Amino acid sequence: MASRATAPVFGLAKRTTAAVAPSASLIRSYSAPVGNSIPLAKKKYVPSQGTYPQGFKVGGIVVGVKPRNTTKPDLAMIVSDVPCAAAAVFTKNRFQAAPVTFSRELLRTAAAADRPSIRSVLINSGCANAVTGKGGLEDAAAMARAADAVCSSPTETSGTIVMSTGVIGQRLPIQKILDGVPKVYAGLGSSHDHWLTAAKSICTTDTFPKLLSRTFTLPSAAGVEYRIAGMTKGAGMIHPNMATLLGVLATDAPLSQAALPALLKHAVDRSFNSITIDGDTSTNDTVALLANGTAGGAAVANNPASPDYLAFRAVLTDFAAELAQLVVRDGEGATKFVTIRVTEAASAADARRIASTIARSPLVKTALYGKDANWGRILCATGYALVSEPGEADSAAATATIAPDRTDVSFVPTDGSAELKLLVKGEPEAVDEARAAEILEHEDLEILVRLGTGSAEATYWTCDYSHEYITINGDYRT
Amino acid sequence: MASRATAPVFGLAKRTTAAVAPSASLIRSYSAPVGNSIPLAKKKYVPSQGTYPQGFKVGGIVVGVKPRNTTKPDLAMIVSDVPCAAAAVFTKNRFQAAPVTFSRELLRTAAAADRPSIRSVLINSGCANAVTGKGGLEDAAAMARAADAVCSSPTETSGTIVMSTGVIGQRLPIQKILDGVPKVYAGLGSSHDHWLTAAKSICTTDTFPKLLSRTFTLPSAAGVEYRIAGMTKGAGMIHPNMATLLGVLATDAPLSQAALPALLKHAVDRSFNSITIDGDTSTNDTVALLANGTAGGAAVANNPASPDYLAFRAVLTDFAAELAQLVVRDGEGATKFVTIRVTEAASAADARRIASTIARSPLVKTALYGKDANWGRILCATGYALVSEPGEADSAAATATIAPDRTDVSFVPTDGSAELKLLVKGEPEAVDEARAAEILEHEDLEILVRLGTGSAEATYWTCDYSHEYITINGDYRT
Repeated sequence: MASRATAPVFGLAKRTTAAVAPSASLIRSYSAPVGNSIPLAKKKYVPSQGTYPQGFKVGGIVVGVKPRNTTKPDLAMIVSDVPCAAAAVFTKNRFQAAPVTFSRELLRTAAAADRPSIRSVLINSGCANAVTGKGGLEDAAAMARAADAVCSSPTETSGTIVMSTGVIGQRLPIQKILDGVPKVYAGLGSSHDHWLTAAKSICTTDTFPKLLSRTFTLPSAAGVEYRIAGMTKGAGMIHPNMATLLGVLATDAPLSQAALPALLKHAVDRSFNSITIDGDTSTNDTVALLANGTAGGAAVANNPASPDYLAFRAVLTDFAAELAQLVVRDGEGATKFVTIRVTEAASAADARRIASTIARSPLVKTALYGKDANWGRILCATGYALVSEPGEADSAAATATIAPDRTDVSFVPTDGSAELKLLVKGEPEAVDEARAAEILEHEDLEILVRLGTGSAEATYWTCDYSHEYITINGDYRT
Repeated sequence: MASRATAPVFGLAKRTTAAVAPSASLIRSYSAPVGNSIPLAKKKYVPSQGTYPQGFKVGGIVVGVKPRNTTKPDLAMIVSDVPCAAAAVFTKNRFQAAPVTFSRELLRTAAAADRPSIRSVLINSGCANAVTGKGGLEDAAAMARAADAVCSSPTETSGTIVMSTGVIGQRLPIQKILDGVPKVYAGLGSSHDHWLTAAKSICTTDTFPKLLSRTFTLPSAAGVEYRIAGMTKGAGMIHPNMATLLGVLATDAPLSQAALPALLKHAVDRSFNSITIDGDTSTNDTVALLANGTAGGAAVANNPASPDYLAFRAVLTDFAAELAQLVVRDGEGATKFVTIRVTEAASAADARRIASTIARSPLVKTALYGKDANWGRILCATGYALVSEPGEADSAAATATIAPDRTDVSFVPTDGSAELKLLVKGEPEAVDEARAAEILEHEDLEILVRLGTGSAEATYWTCDYSHEYITINGDYRT
């Protein structure tokens, strides 16, 4: 990778980036949900009201990132009245989109400054600004500058996190976006409708906007009601580390800048990094957390032993998990929402890898689609989860973690009824097929694998593979 | 895992196995191709003649492993006139089927004896004899004893490799199989039709039998024509290490017992371990090689420097690759045959992992199905191929191997016309979409990824994901 100096970027004189040049000639587009209609079965996941954090204004407008789009909002903005402490978790994909490169450096600078210095987040859908070279990076920086110009005072050294989602390899229609920034800013507000519009603006192949809000308290300020809200989007290329997945979480709780990165990482590992739709990890994935402290109280320091720190971490982790699960609910073509729980493992990493492998197995996913209690496929995926690739050394851990004669596999119904045991200590049960069919009729299901070799565990959330998944992804361009 | 003594198994007083008990009550079945009809498009892959190794007799009959089956042969037998040198490569799945446990021990004993000691291979389709506990292991041993009884003299210490393929968790109808052994043996022969019937007998969801034969010479005996023949089956749960994949290769060349294991491993790593249909690695996968030396000549010793050793290894590797490719041609629901070639990598292991990741990506596979020149998805898969799972340490290798600004992605047409460059040194090309569409109309395609960071390379073969894949696997039970 070439290292080069770049121009007017917040707090940065020099950065390392992929020096790839753009080509405006490669125009792609894909099918996004038509209009704002939400499938009937998904309506229950879209809130009709919420309690949103103080001191944030949000909104979204149509700028027409995709030329054909004249109705779906595709530029979202989240602005805090005051600079926020902020952190983000980014994709580990080696081909990182320009907004990822830009925002990562911005937050590195913010962390080094160790004070609240992020005022806003600007997000476009319809184009990922990925593999767009130097020009793409300039576009990302230009988006941030345009946002800074409207929302922070000239003397303020605060910045804007930029995110983009959509097709790879296409330049942004940057002038449309820059022209849109003052317009979206002018319409910002703090109502439920404003938040919902912002959540809609970041969607691509999503069939419904993903928005949640919640109130909480901290031990040190029992009388104060804090608020957290978040929005996210899927719905393909979803796998840990992460996905064509964007997420923004905002709270009015007083978090110190120093505390945020570890808090967010803890939460993301147990939420956005524990979901998989198709095992593909995209170029743009970003989850950001902003804390403006507007609700008051003493700043939560970076002290994992303090009650406030632990309380907030628990709230954040639960909240992020709930938000991440909405992405799975809207997995491309998904008809099932499946929790994979692997318990009694020799190590958490092994439990995680087994859960991930079951969640990714096309044979498990198609069996779920077919409502087939095919535990053989679950067992099979468990059995190869820790196996090395050909040519790589075998892991001794596999032997410690997976003992065929200690393995249980069960379906746990989500209606509270008794678990259906499929395999006990490696022995197939005489399965009541009628009961299995009954359980598999439900949209929700938990697959429980007890390994019997330790006490570590991991939970993943995934969906099935349906004909519609193939249709959506086989015919992405319209 | 419990260690226990087992009874009458060839050359074994004691073994370690999964002490799981069977349940006869769980009856599953699945859809296999009806009758012996082969899809028109696949007929070209089924030979109408062949040159088969001397001293082998083969055949197959209908025993009705699945009660509904009254027409498709489901018990195959391969018998050599004399004991053979033999080796096999088995699945690494931790839940190994009984025939894998049995045959692995048999070949361990054969290798220790260091002399030709395998007379036959007995294979049933329709039931995998996996997760069937102690009873299943006894069934596998009983199959071998029945085969030994008909094909070797009472004083001969030779053995039978046993393989099973089909549904997991169901006991074999063992009496039907034992009754069938003298019948299948009585009908063995060495004609093309006999080989084709054997190849048909091992099929499950395959749409065509996979059989190849070839002649070759060795440097030390230029006047002698040696022969090799092989049969294999797919077609789901296909991924390295390995798949619900069985393969039997037989040659009349004089290979020493000591040379065979390494020769077979070399070939399998570059053939059966370089294909993926769905990334699922099954409980039963076995590829075995038998060499009876009937064609004469000096035995090829275990000496990787000798011309005969190298010549045979090259023949075996090419032959195995051709055979493995037939499995991909018959991938469940496959409409494409795709070669993924990753070159200029910093290491062979990295090249292999990147090729494997591209080959497994559901987004790449659905784009291929949709004939979409979506290089962004290929690039995306390349970019996350070497990324660690959340919670695991990052690999330094990723940085050395993948440099966004050195990466090329091209489609290489299989008709000999010029490659279509999609990405050059990280820059998107102005793709001629009409030309891309033309290339993607063909069944065959090569995706070439040049990393520009070294000189290692790897090749994988895979297919696409179609609606039919979902149908086949969502509705496995009929």
